[in-house]
Amino acid sequence: MIAVIKKGTTQEQMDVLVQWLATQNIEVHISQGHNYTVLGLIGDTTHVDMDLIESLDIVESVKKVSEPFKQCSKKFHPDDTVVDVNGMKIGGGHFQLIAGPCSVESKDQIISVAESVKASGAGILRGGAFKPRTSPYDFQGLKSVGLDLLLEAKRATGMPIVTEIMNTEHLPLFEQVDIIQVGARNMQNFELLKALGHTNKPILLKRGLANTMKELLMSAEYIMASGNPNIILCERGIRTYETYTRNTLDLSAVPMLKELSHLPVVVDPSHATGSSKLVKPMALAAAAAGADGLMIEVHNDPLHAWCDGAQSLTPEQFADVAEKVRKIREIL
Amino acid sequence: MIAVIKKGTTQEQMDVLVQWLATQNIEVHISQGHNYTVLGLIGDTTHVDMDLIESLDIVESVKKVSEPFKQCSKKFHPDDTVVDVNGMKIGGGHFQLIAGPCSVESKDQIISVAESVKASGAGILRGGAFKPRTSPYDFQGLKSVGLDLLLEAKRATGMPIVTEIMNTEHLPLFEQVDIIQVGARNMQNFELLKALGHTNKPILLKRGLANTMKELLMSAEYIMASGNPNIILCERGIRTYETYTRNTLDLSAVPMLKELSHLPVVVDPSHATGSSKLVKPMALAAAAAGADGLMIEVHNDPLHAWCDGAQSLTPEQFADVAEKVRKIREIL
Amino acid sequence: MIAVIKKGTTQEQMDVLVQWLATQNIEVHISQGHNYTVLGLIGDTTHVDMDLIESLDIVESVKKVSEPFKQCSKKFHPDDTVVDVNGMKIGGGHFQLIAGPCSVESKDQIISVAESVKASGAGILRGGAFKPRTSPYDFQGLKSVGLDLLLEAKRATGMPIVTEIMNTEHLPLFEQVDIIQVGARNMQNFELLKALGHTNKPILLKRGLANTMKELLMSAEYIMASGNPNIILCERGIRTYETYTRNTLDLSAVPMLKELSHLPVVVDPSHATGSSKLVKPMALAAAAAGADGLMIEVHNDPLHAWCDGAQSLTPEQFADVAEKVRKIREIL
Amino acid sequence: MIAVIKKGTTQEQMDVLVQWLATQNIEVHISQGHNYTVLGLIGDTTHVDMDLIESLDIVESVKKVSEPFKQCSKKFHPDDTVVDVNGMKIGGGHFQLIAGPCSVESKDQIISVAESVKASGAGILRGGAFKPRTSPYDFQGLKSVGLDLLLEAKRATGMPIVTEIMNTEHLPLFEQVDIIQVGARNMQNFELLKALGHTNKPILLKRGLANTMKELLMSAEYIMASGNPNIILCERGIRTYETYTRNTLDLSAVPMLKELSHLPVVVDPSHATGSSKLVKPMALAAAAAGADGLMIEVHNDPLHAWCDGAQSLTPEQFADVAEKVRKIREIL
Repeated sequence: MIAVIKKGTTQEQMDVLVQWLATQNIEVHISQGHNYTVLGLIGDTTHVDMDLIESLDIVESVKKVSEPFKQCSKKFHPDDTVVDVNGMKIGGGHFQLIAGPCSVESKDQIISVAESVKASGAGILRGGAFKPRTSPYDFQGLKSVGLDLLLEAKRATGMPIVTEIMNTEHLPLFEQVDIIQVGARNMQNFELLKALGHTNKPILLKRGLANTMKELLMSAEYIMASGNPNIILCERGIRTYETYTRNTLDLSAVPMLKELSHLPVVVDPSHATGSSKLVKPMALAAAAAGADGLMIEVHNDPLHAWCDGAQSLTPEQFADVAEKVRKIREIL
Repeated sequence: MIAVIKKGTTQEQMDVLVQWLATQNIEVHISQGHNYTVLGLIGDTTHVDMDLIESLDIVESVKKVSEPFKQCSKKFHPDDTVVDVNGMKIGGGHFQLIAGPCSVESKDQIISVAESVKASGAGILRGGAFKPRTSPYDFQGLKSVGLDLLLEAKRATGMPIVTEIMNTEHLPLFEQVDIIQVGARNMQNFELLKALGHTNKPILLKRGLANTMKELLMSAEYIMASGNPNIILCERGIRTYETYTRNTLDLSAVPMLKELSHLPVVVDPSHATGSSKLVKPMALAAAAAGADGLMIEVHNDPLHAWCDGAQSLTPEQFADVAEKVRKIREIL
Repeated sequence: MIAVIKKGTTQEQMDVLVQWLATQNIEVHISQGHNYTVLGLIGDTTHVDMDLIESLDIVESVKKVSEPFKQCSKKFHPDDTVVDVNGMKIGGGHFQLIAGPCSVESKDQIISVAESVKASGAGILRGGAFKPRTSPYDFQGLKSVGLDLLLEAKRATGMPIVTEIMNTEHLPLFEQVDIIQVGARNMQNFELLKALGHTNKPILLKRGLANTMKELLMSAEYIMASGNPNIILCERGIRTYETYTRNTLDLSAVPMLKELSHLPVVVDPSHATGSSKLVKPMALAAAAAGADGLMIEVHNDPLHAWCDGAQSLTPEQFADVAEKVRKIREIL
Repeated sequence: MIAVIKKGTTQEQMDVLVQWLATQNIEVHISQGHNYTVLGLIGDTTHVDMDLIESLDIVESVKKVSEPFKQCSKKFHPDDTVVDVNGMKIGGGHFQLIAGPCSVESKDQIISVAESVKASGAGILRGGAFKPRTSPYDFQGLKSVGLDLLLEAKRATGMPIVTEIMNTEHLPLFEQVDIIQVGARNMQNFELLKALGHTNKPILLKRGLANTMKELLMSAEYIMASGNPNIILCERGIRTYETYTRNTLDLSAVPMLKELSHLPVVVDPSHATGSSKLVKPMALAAAAAGADGLMIEVHNDPLHAWCDGAQSLTPEQFADVAEKVRKIREIL
């Protein structure tokens, strides 16, 4: 950490600051410039309140020199993490298509969708059982019944499954789930992150609606700091002022996150755009940007889907996307 | 709900849509324009998937006619809600100052701050026991010990207390807390909202970092739909591209929310700005904008606060703010 | 346009509104619902002040049924526009690579870069002569000298050139320029747009830092309404709260704009990301998303570039990008 | 400027950087930490390309130590600027109400509004002659005819006038205008800023739709660097994701800009909110936040205003606001 001291600060004022920092085991390295004096703070500055120092009268500004994330940083762990889900690998050059309906609706529906996306090359089945909805009056998912149906589809097709958790109290229900998803709205539900850190399940962590990449990595750090290193990051669009699309898919997050972290990064073009017409071009773009996987909503009958039908591909559309994604990955 | 149908749509195509809507108990009222045909959808459209209809080939666009919130809407409940916290009233013309430290640190600290802010006119004591922090390595609050210290301060001063909850599993610990706060990061933690809806405690619901006013009201609706009408809305700054301030305090939300809803609206200028220098002007501005209360961080020794010292007022600064706020309210 | 009237509105109040609209040649079609009355406004509503009607006491809300852009709309002009720049075509299936340095610095530099990007497949040469800079103390470009050097490079290589204009008074200097660029900061410099509409030059119109796609199309409409139909839209990143990248490249704008409009859409991954490491993945992603062209900064010696060296590719890096873009376009 | 060098960098690599900086007359002060080496760059770093240094392989990050604005900075000019407009002073404790219609429509209209707002305490008359409109089909203002009518109102009432300029070519028409306004869309029209810097007129500079406070100050710096120190900054709402209000009024910009700069800061609550119902609370809030003035749209007949009627106050509403603002200023 670096503190820039204002011109005109007396030696005594500076001494007070240096001694206060010393009580926090921070050594100070002073470097005198023409217009400013710069203090280099050496030691474990993790616990030093940067905003507080910046608010002091003699301090011009404070800058962090190092990133606050450690365990998920590429700097401290240069090799890419490969998350292995029952033999389906993601990261470190391994790519996966994750597909399935927004909501699990019935046994027939989920097994039929699972079989068709598997045939097109999907390795992992997605399906919502607990659904976070903005309105209390909207369909909230089949809950534990939905989980059971997902497990039936898993048995029928052999595909590992991923589904969203919304509360620590539901954890016992997720014992046979292969990947637990943390949704965008819960990205900073720290109690949930800590509880997931105490499991050994792969976690698919979605970027929050208005969260920075740094915050996404700090949330991954919460899970890792509690002992679970199996994390898949997911870009799913961020909130901007644009209204023609539901969110703005931030594809530059793919190469940027992969430069900062060793964790795999997948992209969800369905929630990002909210419109099935945009899913295909954004899926191909995500593959071209170097994503480690794609998570795509597929429904056998979008017109009658219980939720998010507008953004679901038909199995035929998904097969076309899967084929083109495969070819793009060959080029990279 | 209104659906605008594209020019060139055949009668047969339109009939298919009308019949499909009829299966959802939606009656359709057709109005023929020059360039467009407009369908008025009459009935309970709460469960109709607007995005799905918009994605149909024959549909140009879909518009909601009514707001999705009901119980918190001023339209259905024109009288202002007055939340009564042990005799301290908020809303419907009643104004409250809520003050106290970011974190509860010790018995002496919390009682000393409580006494001083009470003397300056604060009616309710705030203090963090469970602290949501972006980094897992930051101080996470004294937790249940902190709650006990808050209750001691309540007994010592007679002030009702407000403190933040982070997880449904902690609810039993909050039995003697007067107002339960839902933090910005949990504004869309729907399981928590539902659980709080089953209590009879006043809830202070903070607007999320990047949530619209409509979403804030929908989260209030979650609590009300579960049976609890005692909600205080709180504007605490939203995320924008500006970096000189921690967040951008959206004061226009005060009159706007009060036009849309009967619930009281308070403002937290401390978290909004992140800088004690800005707290005073923003507190006065919030009062002038018509807020029903202010929530302000006050610390007896900001330089040694365990968190957020940079944004805490001293008791003397708070007394000055309280005095000026009182005078501004007289003018309104 | 549709106006939703509040419950409880009297027939007399409604008559006043209907008559006032009649004075503006707007016919009204009334449709009575259970909770609302909906007025369909028929006629030329372009000049009707939607906000004003919405502010009336009896009006619940007002919704536009049609988009405000006409000449650039795909609805009124279904065939894709193909912009022809001295035989180099963009749009309607034609793809162009536009490359060159941020700033023109010298004759040797611009000719050397031009020759190398041409050899790699670039069809059009870019180079800044007038440079918009946030600080008055930064290098502002070689101005008319830079234009002359660009023209020398055009003669030497046969490549058409594109360069930015900043003021209507400079127009006479751009007589031999092939494509005139309107930068992001001038996207709503309406006087400039009108002046360019009176030329017959192709215009490359960049999306503003915080402008919606609708506003971008309205700015294109300004140029077209003044008589010039030769417009190329350019997505170059929008401003969000994220700080790891300079801007957030909104690639979903590519398929979305192409659905709304017949104009070609190119992508500038250099300004969008601000970092040469991100230019390649974003260039490939833009091609996969269906862009009609790419505009990429290339410098023979990025370390000594006079501006934006951090985001410039070397000629070798550009050749690699060009090759992979070609292969991705074959797949689409 | 400070450059943080990565661990593992060799002395030779560092020497290359130091020598390259020396060619730009930058002296380097090296400070060795545990995990990082920090280089302090001493000398005129205004022209050093921060992004370029940051892109070097051996560099971890680069931080600016000083702000890029000089002439408008409070640091170099601690006394508040007082702009004097024909005896009407703004800044340094002087407060002004600026009021008038969105557009000048007729002689009767502008004189009638001017007289009524003057009677309520307004010191300066506003009125639009050249109107920037998103759509080319909207009313664009009466242009030079509108300027003439404004001058008639000036003669009739003695009030100084402020009106917007959109292009350098219109400058000769503004000779008798007292304050020239730069609108939000032209805040980074650098050619216009430079031209205004060569006049001696007071300039009212509006913050752009999505511009930071730093960029606003850099635009003021453009005007000052060209020789004109008479600048009034204006906060008028920024673009966010919220849709219930037209823009989000950033009132924390008032105390923040006044801490950074000596220039006066006024607030325009009319354009910020887009709704007359919100103008009054936001006007009072702006006064309470310490603004040096308010710019408010007033129309004698909002229902028939040619533009922005929805956000205009009636003269009676304005008189009420003016009275309450006066009382709030007495408290501060």
